[in-house]
Formats: sequence, structure tokens, C-alpha cells
Amino acid sequence: MKILLLNPNTTTAVTDLLYAAGAKAASPGTELVVATAERGVPYIATRAEAQIGGAIALEMLAAAGSSVDAAIIAAFGDPGLFGARELFDIPVIGLAEAAMLTACMLGRRFSIVTFARALAPWYQECVTMHGLDARCAGIRTLDGTFQSISNVQAEKEDLLVTLANRAVEQDAADVIILSGAPLAGLADKVSHRIPVPVIDPTAAAVRQAETLVALKPRKAVAGTFRRPDPKPTVGLAEPLAAVIEHRRRSDVKGETH
Amino acid sequence: MKILLLNPNTTTAVTDLLYAAGAKAASPGTELVVATAERGVPYIATRAEAQIGGAIALEMLAAAGSSVDAAIIAAFGDPGLFGARELFDIPVIGLAEAAMLTACMLGRRFSIVTFARALAPWYQECVTMHGLDARCAGIRTLDGTFQSISNVQAEKEDLLVTLANRAVEQDAADVIILSGAPLAGLADKVSHRIPVPVIDPTAAAVRQAETLVALKPRKAVAGTFRRPDPKPTVGLAEPLAAVIEHRRRSDVKGETH
Amino acid sequence: MKILLLNPNTTTAVTDLLYAAGAKAASPGTELVVATAERGVPYIATRAEAQIGGAIALEMLAAAGSSVDAAIIAAFGDPGLFGARELFDIPVIGLAEAAMLTACMLGRRFSIVTFARALAPWYQECVTMHGLDARCAGIRTLDGTFQSISNVQAEKEDLLVTLANRAVEQDAADVIILSGAPLAGLADKVSHRIPVPVIDPTAAAVRQAETLVALKPRKAVAGTFRRPDPKPTVGLAEPLAAVIEHRRRSDVKGETH
Amino acid sequence: MKILLLNPNTTTAVTDLLYAAGAKAASPGTELVVATAERGVPYIATRAEAQIGGAIALEMLAAAGSSVDAAIIAAFGDPGLFGARELFDIPVIGLAEAAMLTACMLGRRFSIVTFARALAPWYQECVTMHGLDARCAGIRTLDGTFQSISNVQAEKEDLLVTLANRAVEQDAADVIILSGAPLAGLADKVSHRIPVPVIDPTAAAVRQAETLVALKPRKAVAGTFRRPDPKPTVGLAEPLAAVIEHRRRSDVKGETH
Amino acid sequence: MKILLLNPNTTTAVTDLLYAAGAKAASPGTELVVATAERGVPYIATRAEAQIGGAIALEMLAAAGSSVDAAIIAAFGDPGLFGARELFDIPVIGLAEAAMLTACMLGRRFSIVTFARALAPWYQECVTMHGLDARCAGIRTLDGTFQSISNVQAEKEDLLVTLANRAVEQDAADVIILSGAPLAGLADKVSHRIPVPVIDPTAAAVRQAETLVALKPRKAVAGTFRRPDPKPTVGLAEPLAAVIEHRRRSDVKGETH
Amino acid sequence: MKILLLNPNTTTAVTDLLYAAGAKAASPGTELVVATAERGVPYIATRAEAQIGGAIALEMLAAAGSSVDAAIIAAFGDPGLFGARELFDIPVIGLAEAAMLTACMLGRRFSIVTFARALAPWYQECVTMHGLDARCAGIRTLDGTFQSISNVQAEKEDLLVTLANRAVEQDAADVIILSGAPLAGLADKVSHRIPVPVIDPTAAAVRQAETLVALKPRKAVAGTFRRPDPKPTVGLAEPLAAVIEHRRRSDVKGETH
Repeated sequence: MKILLLNPNTTTAVTDLLYAAGAKAASPGTELVVATAERGVPYIATRAEAQIGGAIALEMLAAAGSSVDAAIIAAFGDPGLFGARELFDIPVIGLAEAAMLTACMLGRRFSIVTFARALAPWYQECVTMHGLDARCAGIRTLDGTFQSISNVQAEKEDLLVTLANRAVEQDAADVIILSGAPLAGLADKVSHRIPVPVIDPTAAAVRQAETLVALKPRKAVAGTFRRPDPKPTVGLAEPLAAVIEHRRRSDVKGETH
Repeated sequence: MKILLLNPNTTTAVTDLLYAAGAKAASPGTELVVATAERGVPYIATRAEAQIGGAIALEMLAAAGSSVDAAIIAAFGDPGLFGARELFDIPVIGLAEAAMLTACMLGRRFSIVTFARALAPWYQECVTMHGLDARCAGIRTLDGTFQSISNVQAEKEDLLVTLANRAVEQDAADVIILSGAPLAGLADKVSHRIPVPVIDPTAAAVRQAETLVALKPRKAVAGTFRRPDPKPTVGLAEPLAAVIEHRRRSDVKGETH
Repeated sequence: MKILLLNPNTTTAVTDLLYAAGAKAASPGTELVVATAERGVPYIATRAEAQIGGAIALEMLAAAGSSVDAAIIAAFGDPGLFGARELFDIPVIGLAEAAMLTACMLGRRFSIVTFARALAPWYQECVTMHGLDARCAGIRTLDGTFQSISNVQAEKEDLLVTLANRAVEQDAADVIILSGAPLAGLADKVSHRIPVPVIDPTAAAVRQAETLVALKPRKAVAGTFRRPDPKPTVGLAEPLAAVIEHRRRSDVKGETH
Repeated sequence: MKILLLNPNTTTAVTDLLYAAGAKAASPGTELVVATAERGVPYIATRAEAQIGGAIALEMLAAAGSSVDAAIIAAFGDPGLFGARELFDIPVIGLAEAAMLTACMLGRRFSIVTFARALAPWYQECVTMHGLDARCAGIRTLDGTFQSISNVQAEKEDLLVTLANRAVEQDAADVIILSGAPLAGLADKVSHRIPVPVIDPTAAAVRQAETLVALKPRKAVAGTFRRPDPKPTVGLAEPLAAVIEHRRRSDVKGETH
Repeated sequence: MKILLLNPNTTTAVTDLLYAAGAKAASPGTELVVATAERGVPYIATRAEAQIGGAIALEMLAAAGSSVDAAIIAAFGDPGLFGARELFDIPVIGLAEAAMLTACMLGRRFSIVTFARALAPWYQECVTMHGLDARCAGIRTLDGTFQSISNVQAEKEDLLVTLANRAVEQDAADVIILSGAPLAGLADKVSHRIPVPVIDPTAAAVRQAETLVALKPRKAVAGTFRRPDPKPTVGLAEPLAAVIEHRRRSDVKGETH
Repeated sequence: MKILLLNPNTTTAVTDLLYAAGAKAASPGTELVVATAERGVPYIATRAEAQIGGAIALEMLAAAGSSVDAAIIAAFGDPGLFGARELFDIPVIGLAEAAMLTACMLGRRFSIVTFARALAPWYQECVTMHGLDARCAGIRTLDGTFQSISNVQAEKEDLLVTLANRAVEQDAADVIILSGAPLAGLADKVSHRIPVPVIDPTAAAVRQAETLVALKPRKAVAGTFRRPDPKPTVGLAEPLAAVIEHRRRSDVKGETH
């Protein structure tokens, strides 16, 4: 099967990290396809950037079309996730969602450990959006700045391990989630230094995407995630417009070109 | 003072309704400025459209710049609201938020009454997003289709009144909110046929925006709504890019053009 | 319009503070009428005092009769609020309610900062009573005693600013509410020393009362806030008895004397 | 031991019902002392009446002084309860509280069944005030009027049984609470007609008051229920003023006499 | 009346402590019958042990049969409680449940103070299982080991008092619950050193069991706690098998003998 | 990898259904090992049976020892799950847990649809135990009896489809979970007759177990799911005793033999 690892950030080095972590976790027979946002910001970290990046994620999913079996929105915070789930026929899951739900099977409460304080409010709202507050022991973030988003996991490795251990001791975390995308792959390297299970969101997401494909759930045609009826659009990226308008992309379309 | 009534939908007839309802509620000395989305969909009604429309709302706010004292995102569901609150220096409020918080001062629980079933999931997530589930008696929607978004309030007036009365009797609603934007102005016409206070979200939002301007709260420079640090962008609408990059719009901007 | 600023405490110096802060926030054309409790305690600070003070607030509202367009119960904690909303035809709002709902439009979570530890339990129950726990980052109180209730804001200004800053840093408060009534007016003086928006409850309440008057919501004749049916009373203050019995005050009243 | 059964209503016929139901449940050696409010309303049924009645309950408790070992505020809705618990040295419990906590030991969720629709909002707020929403399957009330408060249990017996059975079948109630005070004693008569345990609030309250006396908990001198420091008062009933001011009642006191 | 104090632990010294504390609290005319588990662990402290111990508690209750009027599952954490409530005709209550519900009548929030860190997760899940999270100020546990389960209360008395005082000061606990079973009787000895009411779970449970017997609630024949229909069993302890199969124990039964 | 599909019921026909549904969902290279309880009840359906069955599940897991890579407790309701997660080194997941968490990735709220009314209370407590109430749209059960547990899915197929459709229409379910174990395999047969994704808990559990094995989370040595310290036992099944006592099973052990 083919799974799209969609990076709604513009940093290809992060895409590379995601691919590496994802490929390691993928089952034989799973092909990971990556995409990096061509517009947006290098690394989504705030509510405003998530609003914009989520819309870009929808454009990217529309562009990918039916060429994949499932897609992962690979930014912890899951920008655009529920809209995507509504709009597209394939399963779409979020990095945060996959990590948190997987963590739930390994303990009572997970802690999210990440490298930048700016991420905390967005992450917190993501936990709430998924209705998982009761399962979250807290969000712990490093203070201070980092040199580069593509190298932050190496730069901060020791500090993140210390932070994770503090979450276990002080917040009673049963599971640690190392997030977001720039930390893809770190869990494997440091899990032996943390006394509880450590989740790599990318690995979890790849496995969960495979699971959804394997279970072959039908696309909802009722309920709150059925595909919306066709609606005209103006000025949207052509593939996304086509999806919303229920057009094949080759259809002639007037003024929005 | 100047208040921007920002319609993230592309339907100018809805903007006209919003303006009429808002102008009626505005204090002397308040000037309402309107803006209608130039891209997007005629009427936001789903999570996907809210994701896209919220990003467009941020573009519109950036374009409006410092020419207004406050802004209202005039789609019930508040697309892009928290991102806007983070990004801009002026107060920005949402139609749903203003209506719900105002309703809270008139009773224990409000019901949201609207004209299309498709709106319910998005509205429900909006109530939750604002942490107001305990104050919401329910969301009641009409079934069936309507002829035109700009005339739906006249077409469905009687049905909506019946629905509101049912919310009072069966859901123990203390207050009725008639939403969303296409129903702007309807509350005034029908409130005598509904035995509890009826909120017009546009009227509430205009008054609440005035209140925020009058109270002169400072823009947060700490906490989760401080303006994010400057960050490079690629391919975003120029005014929004300028805001995110902390540029004056006249600045020369290099490789992101 | 005429708004009653009802101080359910017996301290007229606090009424003066409330009036000064309220007058500054009022719109042109708004006349503030004040009333100070003639019985009760100098400053309500506990559940028992709120129980008593709330009943006194109802007496005061009954005495004010239809001479005002709206009323503010000007003790943070909102004693008697829901009973008043039920009993009277004019909008009645509480200081805490107005401050908290206004704060909700400026951030995700507010902190309540006040001058006496004894107030915390009552304030906490007030937050819960309004269903706003999810929006409250905490209640921070000074330890120690103060010299006089009417001068406590000057005496404790620096300590309160420090406390507010701690709420921002340690509790992730997006907005600070300086309460209760004896701190009326303080927000204006110190907001530049606190890095997030600061709410003056009195100012917020005056503006919200104006909003409710402007929106002209009807008095509920159904739902849980409709006016109760007439009921005989014994031994209550005459104006309140008249309201409960649905008498004009000039009515002869027989056997309940 | 002596337990005060305090009826904050002015209807002595209700006090008689309370006494009869309480006496039946009391242990040997327990003496029930009754008190009926001398001012207030015949039967508290609304938030406003609870505000007033709660203040009257505090006056009555102050008047009873140290002559009893514990007190029951015998109106379902528990007016004035938390204030009383703060102010007085003896255990004070509420009819609703005792009934609900006892019901919790007999099932997962209880339903409150009562005779008048007007009571529902106040009861609902009482459930929330005690933090027991998750244990409450609902509140069911009869529609329509009744002839006399002292005879309502006989008049409505069959309808109440039907209502209780509906709560079991439709709301999955594990336990039924027949409330409020005017139904005291009814549970015994009808419990064989209801297929789950039925709680008589008065009986539960008498037993719970006995339990609190037997366990001899100390009066809190810390925490949120410690007795407040002395505070001057104006115009309050003399015994209550004495309690708040920490005076023995025989103390000379100036202008408030 | 006869009340079974069922110790699902195998340590008879703990049963002795329970008996002593219970007998002190029991009313005249109450006979306490004790039982100690003949299989299981010396002291239940984890989820796994509670799973096993709860099943053993059901066996013990089945063995006790109709010889008692009510039973107390005397391990804080209430192993097997809801199953027992379903299966047996007599009232069955838990040590934790009785302590927490009694504490609710003495303050807003209680803290659970205990001697071993290992107990905290199980206790926390017990609080949640009873829907009482909003009433719990926290669980405080000693670190370190103890010499013997039957003497831990003497060994740790001072540390536990210190811990309780910390719960009052730092967690705003209004009531302290000293748990679990090995601390039975300690409350009485130390309550004068803790500034809020202190609950002895065994004492509370004995009194609550008496209350349930006195109120004579019928066994549910509907709702979620009605006795399940008869069902075949294999390999269960004979008395428990008989209860599940609705057999009198003297019935002939085939292969499970 | 080897996954143990542990049926805590004594009905081997149900084990067969579980195996068939699980085998269909398993990845190449996954070997499913089944076990059927040798003692207990034919089909766990109540809290009491879950208490007993959960203890039996622990015995079965102990007996399986280290011969498998992960285990599934294959009764919807997850008897013994948290104890197992604590006690054993391999990942252990529950049928309900796996189904619900998988459903969360396909919609906002799932409904649980099952064949017997008796199951509802236990299922409801299971949803709460996992902290997923906000994600559950409801539990719908058939009324009436069924002929045999091993054939109930064929007998009730049409009624279950109708019930599922009702959950979609009336409860706004986005996903349907067909439970419990006796319905294993039904989802595949009927999913085309239900307009939203349908989850087969066994299929979901097998895939989730594979995922946990693939992600190689370490066994917690801290936090609330670390393996408890060794503790003596009496009268427990030997393999379980060995696990709790940290013995190799070949160790000599005294009186519990």
C-alpha cells in the first residue's frame, strides 16, 4: 500500500527526518510517499500558522488525489485534520492523534515532551480537540532557542531526555511522546534512557495508517464526516477547488482559473 | 471607532445582511467597515471550509492592517479566530463567541438554532473550542434545503421560530441564538414570537467589539496570545506574509516573492 | 440609560471606588446610579456572607424598582445573581461574570488576582457556578492582612502586580482579572506593568450592562429564568415582598404583615 | 444526641411531615428538634427564594446556638448549606446532599423525582453545586399544579410512582430520590411499587447527621471551611450578627440593636 | 444488626485493626462479623491485586450468604464493589466509597493520605470510578518502605500527620481521609494534630452500612444493579457459583464440584 | 510475531469466531494463538462476571508466559486489562480499547452497538474507564433474548444493522463498533448496509497488537504501570502466583502448592 507522509511545513530536511522514521516503522509492502509544502512556513508552531498550514495540507491532499491509500498530516498538532477527514475518501490521520491514541494502549496518561515553549498552547488545544485531556499528564517544553529546526533533535537530545524523566517523576506520566515532526526518529535513540515507553509519533502514525488501510473502513456517506455536497469556489488552488466542487480536475472551469 | 465586519464568505449579499444588523446595534460614533472574502466559498458550512476560510480571514485581517480598531470574524463558527487573536494587535472576536458569551449573561444555557443540518458538527466543535459545553442546551437545525443563502432567513422564518420554541420547551434553553451570518437581523423580527431572550450574533458581536475597544486592553506580550516572533514565509498573500515576518509591507522582500 | 451599580457591602468608600471606575468606562449617555447596602457586612468575603449579601442584593434591587434599565451586583462572586435574574425584568449582571466573560474574548484562560486569601474559595465556587472552570487558569491571592478595605488597592499595588506577573508566568494566564470591588480602578493604573490584558471588573460590567440594554432582550416568560408565579411572603423587606407577591408596592397587604 | 431539623420554609405542616419521616428513621437516643422559618415563603422553589431562604436558615441556626449536636437544612436544594458549614461549629448537612450521597452507595446513578416543574432548575444547580452531575441520571418533574403543599404527596402519589418508573426505564436510574420536603415520608409508602431503591431524603439526612455526630469530626480551623474571622455587621438578626462578630449574644453591642 | 467487615487481604492483623476501629464506631446493637481472605495477597496495593482480590471478595460474600445484613469490602480501593452490589441482595459498600462520601458532608474537597506510593494509581482510579474527581484535592503518599503492614500506622504516624498537614496547606483540602485498611483506627489518635476533619474509613463505613440497613432499601429488580439472570459457571468457588447460578447451595450440581 | 487472542469466556465457539475474524485481519507473519478460559462463565456480561473473568484473564496470561509477543483480552469491556498491563512484560490490549481508539481515527464520535441489554452498564463503565466518554455517542442494545451465544450474530444480523443505522441517524455516530466478542466477524458482512465506517473489535485489536509489537515499547520500570515488586501469595493459580512473586515457575514454593 501507499501512504502519503504529508509535511505541511516547507522544510524538506524535516520531511527527510519524517521519511526516515516512518520507513523504519513501515511494514513490508508499504510504500511511503512524501510531500513537502511548497508554501507556508518552515515550521508550524502557532495557532495562526496551523490555520494557514491546515489549509495548505488540504491543498496538498487534493493534489495527491487518489494516488495513495492513506495520508498522514505530519505536523504534531494535526493541522487541517478534521477537514481532511471530511473531504477525502482515503483515511487521513494526524501525527498527534496517532501518537496519543497509541500511547493510550501503553498506560493511563501520556506526557508530550517537545523542544520549544511556543508549541505548548497549540499542542494543548490539540489534546483538547481530540477529547483526550483526561489521558494527558502534561506538556513539557524546553526553554531557550535552538540553532536549526532540522538539527534540533541532536542539539537538544540530553535536555529532552532530562525533561522526559521529569515528566515521569513529577507528572506521573506512564508514556512519553517525543514531538513534533523535527524530533522524528529520536525516540529510538533515547528510549533506553527513559523508564517508560516512548512513542515516536511518525512511527505510530505510519502503523496506524496501515491499520486503517488494512481494516478497509468505508468512507462515511452519513454522519458528520460524510463528504460535503458540491459547492462552488473562487480563487482556491485548482486541485482543492476540484475536490470541493466535485469536479474531475480535467473539467473545464471558468473564472477561478 | 472603526470596526471591521469581516465576512470570510464570498457572498456579498450576506455581508449586506451583516452590515444592516450590525449598524442597527452599533453605538453612535462607531463606524462599521465591511469586507467580503474574494476567494473561498459562498458560505462556510463544514470543517474543511472553516479551515480554508479561517486562513482567508487571516489574509483579510492582514490586508485591513491598522486601519480599524477591532475586527469581527463574521461567520458563526469563528474560523481563524484564535490565530487572529495571536497575530494581530487589535481585538478580534468571533460571531459565535460574542453571541454565546452575551447569552451567558441572560440565562443558564443557550440553544443555537440554525437553518441547515450541515452546520451542526462545525457549530458543536466551536462550542467545545470555547469551553462552553456546559452552557449549551443544544444545537437545533432545520432539515431540508433552502433556495438561496441570502434569502434563507425570510424563507425559513416560521420554521426557525418553531424550532426555537422547541428548544425552549424540550431542551430547557434559557436563551436562543439565531445563527449564522445569513440569519443576521432575524432576531429582531421574531423575538416577540419566542418566549426567551433571542440573540442576534452580529448585534452582540458589534457591541462586544465596541466594549473591547473601550476597555483598551493591551496586546499581550506574554502568555499564549503574544504575537509570535518573526518567521520567514513562502507563497502566502503578501499582507499576511508581512505580518508573520514582522515586515512593514513596503519592505523589500527577497526570495519569498 | 440608567444603570444601577449595586454594592451589597455596607462600605460606601467601596461604592465610591466602584462609581469612579464605572463612570470612566461608561458610554456617553449612560447614567450610573449607585446604592450601598444598609445592612450586612463591610465587605463580603465568605460563603456565609455571600448568602446573606445576596439576599440583601435582592432587597436592594426590589427597592430600586423600575427606575433603572439594568443593574450590576457589584461584588466579585456575584451574590444573589441568578435569583435576581429570575425575579426582575431588567438585565442584572454580576461583577465576576462580566469580568470573566469579557476576559474570554481576550485569551484562552484568565487568572483572578485578589488581595485576601479568604476570598479564594468563594471565588472558585463562583467560577464553577458560571461553568467557566476550563477558562480559568487559577486564583492567586495575597497572604497577610491589609489596613483598610477602602485603601487596600493602594497599599497592595506592588504586591498585586507581582502576583499577576506570577500568574502569567507560572499559570499561563492569558488575561488577568483584578478583583474584587475594592480593587475597582486599579487595572488602569497597573496594566502597563503586566504583560497581558488586565480586566477591571467594574469597567467590564458597566460596558456589558450597556450591551444588554442596547440589545433589548425580552424578559423570559418561559425557561428557567422566567419570573416565578406570585407567592405569599412573611417578614421580608417590603419592596422584595411586593416583587415576589407580584404586588405593586402601594397595594394593601393583608395578613402577611 | 439532638439533631435540629430546620425547615427554612414557613409552612409548619411541612415541618410536621419532616418530623414524622425523620423520627421514623432516627436511632434510639436521637432527639429531633424542629424549627420552622418565621419569615420567608411557604415553600422555597426558585433560585431567588433559595437565596433568601438560605440567609434565613443561617439566622435560624444562629438562634439554635449550641443547643443541638448537628443540624439538617431541610429543603431539597440545600439553601445556605455551605455558608452554614463555614460559620457553625456543629455539623450541618442538607437534605439533597444527604439523599444524593446515600443514593450513591446503592447504584451508579440516581434520579430526582419531584412534584413541580418549577423546582427543576434549582435542583439541577444543587446537583452541580455538589459535583455530582456524573451520578445523576436526571430530574423528572410532574407538570401541572397541586392543591396544597402539605397534601401534595397524597394528591400526586400515583403520578409520582409512574414518573419514578419512567426514570428507571428511560433514564437508567439505579436509585430514585423522592424530593423535596413536602414528599417526606412518601418513599416508605411507595417503594414497593418502584423496582429500584427509593430514598427518602429526610430519613437519609437524619441518619447521616447521626453519623457525623458519631464520628466526631473536629471543626476545621484551616481550609476553606474554617470559621471566618470576626467581622462587624449592620442590621442582621441579632443571633446571626453575634455569630459573625464572634460575640456571645449577651455582649453589649452598639448601633445595630 | 449484623455487618460483615470483609478483609480481602490475607493479613489477619489488618482484620484486627479493622475490627477495632469498626467496633468503636458501631452503634449499640450492631454486631460486626469479620472475615479474612484465605487466598490472595497480604495487602492489595495494585490494579492486578485489586482484580484478583475483588474476585476473592465476591467468593467471600457468597460464602457469608444471608447471615449478615450488610457487608463492607474493607480495602480502600473497593475491589469487587460494583460486582458485589449487582450480585447480592444485601447492601455492600466500600471503604473508599464510605470515606469519600462521608467526607463530602464535611467540606468541599478531601485529600487521601496514605503510607505507600504504590497505592496512588489504584486509589486515583477508585476516585474516578466513583465520579468524585471534582471533590478530591489530591492523593498524598509517603515515599520509602515500611517494616510491617500491621504496624505501619505506628511506624509512620508522625510522617502521616505531616503529610496530612501539607495536603491542607498546599492542596486546600477541607477534609483528610487516612487510608487504607492498615491505618484503621489512626484517625482517632491524630485528628487533634490536623486542623481539618479527619475521616477513618472503617468508622465511616460501619456507620454508612448501618444507615443502609436502617433505611431498608429494596434490592433493585430493574436498572443496572438488578441481580443478573442465572448463568452456568465452571470452576468457580462453590458458594459463588451457586449465587451466579441462582442455586441454593445444597442443590446437586454436576461437574463443577 | 505471535499474538495471544485470550478469550476469558468458557465458550470455545466464541473463540472460533474471534480466531476467524482475527486471522482475516492479521498481517502476513503474524501467528494468532488462542486460549479459552477453563473456568468462569460462558459469556461475561455483567460487572461481577467481569471482576471474576478479569482475574481469570490474569491467570491465563500468566500461564501463557513469555511464549507470545503480545496479548489481546478478547472480551469487549476489557476485563483485567489494567492489571495485566501492570503485571506482564508484553503489551496487552483490550478488545474495547482497540476498537474505540481505532474508531477515534475515523470520526468524532463512535457508537457501540450490541446484542444484549445486559451488556450496556458494563460497556458504559468501560468507556469511562478509558476516559473516552466525550468520544462516545452512545451504546445501543437490542432488547429481547437470543438463542445461542455462538450464533447470535447470524440470528440478529438484521436487527443489529437497523440499530446501527439508528445510532447514525439519531445519535450522530460517525463510526459504529459492533461488539462484543460473539459478533466478531460480523462487521465485514454488514458494513455495506451501514453508512459510516464499521469497526470489528477483533480485527482492530489484532492490528493494534501488531502495532505495539512493531513499535517495541519498553516495559515501564517507573510510572504507574511498572511491574509491582514481588509479593507473597496464597492460593492463587500457580503461574499467576509465580508472576506476582517474581519466581520462575520451577522454583520450589512452600505452602501454596
